[in-house]
Amino acid sequence: MPIPAPNLTPPFNILRLSHVEFGVTDLAASRKFYVDTLGLQVTDEDDETIYLRAMEERGHHCLVLKKQDTPGIDYLSYKVWQEEELDKAHDWFKAEGHSVEWVERPYQGRTLRTHDHLGAPMEFYFKMDRLEPIHQKYALYNGVKPLRIDHFNCFAPNVDEAVEFYTRLGFRVTEYTEDEETGRLWASWMHRKGGVHDIAFTNGTGPRLHHTAFWVPTPLNIIDLLDLMSTTGYVANIERGPGRHGISNAFFLYILDPDGHRIEIYCSDYQTVDPDLEPIKWDLKDPQRQTLWGAPAPRSWFENGSTFTGVETRESDLAASPIIAP
Amino acid sequence: MPIPAPNLTPPFNILRLSHVEFGVTDLAASRKFYVDTLGLQVTDEDDETIYLRAMEERGHHCLVLKKQDTPGIDYLSYKVWQEEELDKAHDWFKAEGHSVEWVERPYQGRTLRTHDHLGAPMEFYFKMDRLEPIHQKYALYNGVKPLRIDHFNCFAPNVDEAVEFYTRLGFRVTEYTEDEETGRLWASWMHRKGGVHDIAFTNGTGPRLHHTAFWVPTPLNIIDLLDLMSTTGYVANIERGPGRHGISNAFFLYILDPDGHRIEIYCSDYQTVDPDLEPIKWDLKDPQRQTLWGAPAPRSWFENGSTFTGVETRESDLAASPIIAP
Amino acid sequence: MPIPAPNLTPPFNILRLSHVEFGVTDLAASRKFYVDTLGLQVTDEDDETIYLRAMEERGHHCLVLKKQDTPGIDYLSYKVWQEEELDKAHDWFKAEGHSVEWVERPYQGRTLRTHDHLGAPMEFYFKMDRLEPIHQKYALYNGVKPLRIDHFNCFAPNVDEAVEFYTRLGFRVTEYTEDEETGRLWASWMHRKGGVHDIAFTNGTGPRLHHTAFWVPTPLNIIDLLDLMSTTGYVANIERGPGRHGISNAFFLYILDPDGHRIEIYCSDYQTVDPDLEPIKWDLKDPQRQTLWGAPAPRSWFENGSTFTGVETRESDLAASPIIAP
Amino acid sequence: MPIPAPNLTPPFNILRLSHVEFGVTDLAASRKFYVDTLGLQVTDEDDETIYLRAMEERGHHCLVLKKQDTPGIDYLSYKVWQEEELDKAHDWFKAEGHSVEWVERPYQGRTLRTHDHLGAPMEFYFKMDRLEPIHQKYALYNGVKPLRIDHFNCFAPNVDEAVEFYTRLGFRVTEYTEDEETGRLWASWMHRKGGVHDIAFTNGTGPRLHHTAFWVPTPLNIIDLLDLMSTTGYVANIERGPGRHGISNAFFLYILDPDGHRIEIYCSDYQTVDPDLEPIKWDLKDPQRQTLWGAPAPRSWFENGSTFTGVETRESDLAASPIIAP
Ligand SMILES: [Ca+2]
Ligand SMILES: [Fe+2]
Ligand SMILES: [Fe+2]
Ligand SMILES: [Fe+2]
Ligand SMILES: [Fe+2]
Repeated sequence: MPIPAPNLTPPFNILRLSHVEFGVTDLAASRKFYVDTLGLQVTDEDDETIYLRAMEERGHHCLVLKKQDTPGIDYLSYKVWQEEELDKAHDWFKAEGHSVEWVERPYQGRTLRTHDHLGAPMEFYFKMDRLEPIHQKYALYNGVKPLRIDHFNCFAPNVDEAVEFYTRLGFRVTEYTEDEETGRLWASWMHRKGGVHDIAFTNGTGPRLHHTAFWVPTPLNIIDLLDLMSTTGYVANIERGPGRHGISNAFFLYILDPDGHRIEIYCSDYQTVDPDLEPIKWDLKDPQRQTLWGAPAPRSWFENGSTFTGVETRESDLAASPIIAP
Repeated sequence: MPIPAPNLTPPFNILRLSHVEFGVTDLAASRKFYVDTLGLQVTDEDDETIYLRAMEERGHHCLVLKKQDTPGIDYLSYKVWQEEELDKAHDWFKAEGHSVEWVERPYQGRTLRTHDHLGAPMEFYFKMDRLEPIHQKYALYNGVKPLRIDHFNCFAPNVDEAVEFYTRLGFRVTEYTEDEETGRLWASWMHRKGGVHDIAFTNGTGPRLHHTAFWVPTPLNIIDLLDLMSTTGYVANIERGPGRHGISNAFFLYILDPDGHRIEIYCSDYQTVDPDLEPIKWDLKDPQRQTLWGAPAPRSWFENGSTFTGVETRESDLAASPIIAP
Repeated sequence: MPIPAPNLTPPFNILRLSHVEFGVTDLAASRKFYVDTLGLQVTDEDDETIYLRAMEERGHHCLVLKKQDTPGIDYLSYKVWQEEELDKAHDWFKAEGHSVEWVERPYQGRTLRTHDHLGAPMEFYFKMDRLEPIHQKYALYNGVKPLRIDHFNCFAPNVDEAVEFYTRLGFRVTEYTEDEETGRLWASWMHRKGGVHDIAFTNGTGPRLHHTAFWVPTPLNIIDLLDLMSTTGYVANIERGPGRHGISNAFFLYILDPDGHRIEIYCSDYQTVDPDLEPIKWDLKDPQRQTLWGAPAPRSWFENGSTFTGVETRESDLAASPIIAP
Repeated sequence: MPIPAPNLTPPFNILRLSHVEFGVTDLAASRKFYVDTLGLQVTDEDDETIYLRAMEERGHHCLVLKKQDTPGIDYLSYKVWQEEELDKAHDWFKAEGHSVEWVERPYQGRTLRTHDHLGAPMEFYFKMDRLEPIHQKYALYNGVKPLRIDHFNCFAPNVDEAVEFYTRLGFRVTEYTEDEETGRLWASWMHRKGGVHDIAFTNGTGPRLHHTAFWVPTPLNIIDLLDLMSTTGYVANIERGPGRHGISNAFFLYILDPDGHRIEIYCSDYQTVDPDLEPIKWDLKDPQRQTLWGAPAPRSWFENGSTFTGVETRESDLAASPIIAP
């Protein structure tokens, strides 16, 4: 089995994925997509930046839209358990030879910026401004009724290496795809917060962000979003779905924002808090791996992703190919 | 506009589509599909025949499965308003030069057998054995929780002719697809009972039965069926969907039975009882016509259908092509 | 059995219930309720009147709100099959000794005003302005996503008489409640358009309008409305539900508008187009009659109703009592 | 504020609630309720005991039914992070003066039996037999489609004391009800696993188990269960709901098993992994506290509960009264 044992005593305690900053080229177009269509709530905005949160979140934001000339991902951010974890993280990354830096982020306390084994920017913080609950202000619910950010999915040129690195950070594998021929990993799902994943890795040119997922109440909200998008000018932004994933068993839809950043709408995976949860193995050639109902993903889904601003990518060293829609 | 005015004074009063008899080659396999998987209820069965009804129906059956050497469709059956309509129908078809015959059908009163303008067998009856209601016996609900038969869809080599013939019978067009170039009909949806259709016609080699549709409570029942079929050996029987139709606005799924007879699972179209309801026109090249969300149907969906036992087919004389999945 | 045989050859052809005019005392408050909360669409409005339609309707309106000093119901309106039915209706009501009058109604063709056996104002028309379809303009869907008006329910001091009168008009009974002791009807559901009812009668001081019902896509839309109403100042307007009716098997919620007019949100009853559909009998003391799940309706539900403007009421002559919540 | 600060460094690491053993008087009747109606899966059974798991669980059981002369609750069981936590727990409880005992439990590793501050039996284990995943065996889904055990709710004669004790164990308060007059707690919801609660406390004669909750996919599954129970002889076992809780925002239904043990069917609360999540305060007199939609709970809900076998109860010392249905 190509999956390392879970690391139950990581060097510092990452609580969960927290938020991501997207570089976008047209702030008004992005606002129309994320606020008017998806239904995320604006918590602050000016000419350069829009801060957004989902309906059950009390932290100030889960998504930051930054006006830029070129689309890109500025960083993936994680919340740690308590302030002292930040110092442990600082020392660990430094000892590993990764650049570390204390940065200022609005609405956040002390924040550490570093990067993963591929150079993808990671940020860690312990405290963010807390806002009043809005999960029972039902007049504000709109679009797909997004409840919370759920996970990141990244392209990695070598998924075995990614899993090894993130295992050291304490992420635990819940499901994975193996290439039968080489015995190597083709994809892997890893969590901290007790769901199927906080982050997943997919074989491909990387590091790149494949998608960011938001949790919604039920599959019917995803159907509502499809109806809305397809009758408000966004039919070409629907890339894949709806469907049930084989992996994770979740109900999904993939859509593209105006800059091509991919968003997954996601619900109904399962609880994974047990440290002795056995990872579920899938074969790359299993047609029900991607979609339980058998529909293959389109080529774009395997090829397109968002680069991290200023970070070089390299091609995958694993040639194995999944099932792709004709 | 290529649609004839509705005929509000038809020669006899057809109430609704009622049932269909499928020739199937393996009665046990068909039973597993229709009863154990879809959830239709057996109302009678022997070694040759299985009678089925859906959950809210009180007539004895909406689907008859007949053991045969070759799969095929034996007839489409319609219920008329009262007994005297049968005689009017008899005389009208006879005057039109169609063969007419009084046939015996179990569980039915007097039954007229004739055929439409293409030779597809049509049967008419006014009385069928009535069974106890089971719509509140929730322990019997199973599979996709089918509530009632909703419509037939047939391939026709000339849809303009089909619409003209069925308009004479009092079927009223609710939506239609026009080929922009020739101005001819490519498809049409026609009703008697106050929904989007009792029968539809699709351009293609015909007459053949394209599919038979069953109404279910909500889209979530369709998702349940997909989960069930894809984990009980029926993943290859899922042909198209789920999705929202542009035409009819209904939520749909197309599946194939063990003999390749196509079944649609369908819900949430709209009420059409007004005689002055304006038909909605769609262009053949509109990508949202088939699926509001933009996904094209696969080639099989345009090509495969079930022949009527003993009835010759002819190719369509309209070459126009819809959008087909690559 | 206390139910008369269905009248399959009525004196004129009523197609379906069409709309109702509510006298309301505060047009702005009513607009907030019907438009901002329920999600009906304004098709015209001025200082005196608001016209509303539901999402799948193409007729100009299903609800008219009229500014008045006192709340009341101005009329219940029905659409007939074709213009000539109006004249047949005129003659029939006149021959029955009911007052008849041709009245002007905006957006409608020729309109007959008369009243039923109790003096409740009925109006009949054959033609109303047709509007563009909006059922696929999903950006307009709001609140409970009302699709169409479904039925009226009226208090009648003698339900046997009401059923007899409406049977003569061609309404057919689908379900009914009998008082075991007297053998008399306590309530009855009657249809024209092929659902469980266009109009129902409930024993009580009448004629009064008990409620007007709107059809919505699924029970989840009703849950959404409950969440919305209970967090936007309407918690006291929730009277009964949600629940599944024993009678009709529909999923329901009863709410009160700012003037106390009762609205039912309703979905998932069954098709009733067969003229030989056997009415379903319920006993008044069956606790699952009102709510399949056993919860009794509150006293207000049995006592409160909206009077028809200018029409005298009389008390019921049937003393039998249903199960009422303590 | 009557809520103590969360204890982020508890003496040992409790992962989550795990399972409960119910003493039941008629094993066949209980099986019919839990297996045939709710849809839990039998993982082992004999004449004395039935072991059950929910659909997404891989541990051997979440509910044990034990044939007994008198109904009662034998213990509430919790899973700890790793084996060494058991020893820490043993030492902590012993130092607190609680009885401690290593007990044998089938399908479990080393198990510690002790009790809480009121004498309610608690058991802790770290390892249970792991079973094959069945969450994608959709043919097994049945009844309400229970996915996992979610929480316990207990009557406590002094909720302030209960919160203090469980806070020392590391349970964190997410929501609570305060009696305005006395400033004392009337109820409190506390979690370990990242949802609204693993255990809650309600003011009343205790210790008693108020209910055990199971998580289901969507509110529609709860409606399905209501339809099923009300037509299979269980209408009197429906105690309260369906509704949306004010507290937790979850959708709920309360039902009673054949011995009167109360089960909650529950879904759609929110994620609570942040250690700085601010508890939400509710006033005891807020009518939307129990049910967001305003419906009060019946008296039985406040009074009835299951005693722990062999454990004395005492009456509450807080006289404050919630809103109770008439
Ligand atoms: Ca009709
Ligand atoms: Fe994902
Ligand atoms: Fe169809
Ligand atoms: Fe009603
Ligand atoms: Fe609970």
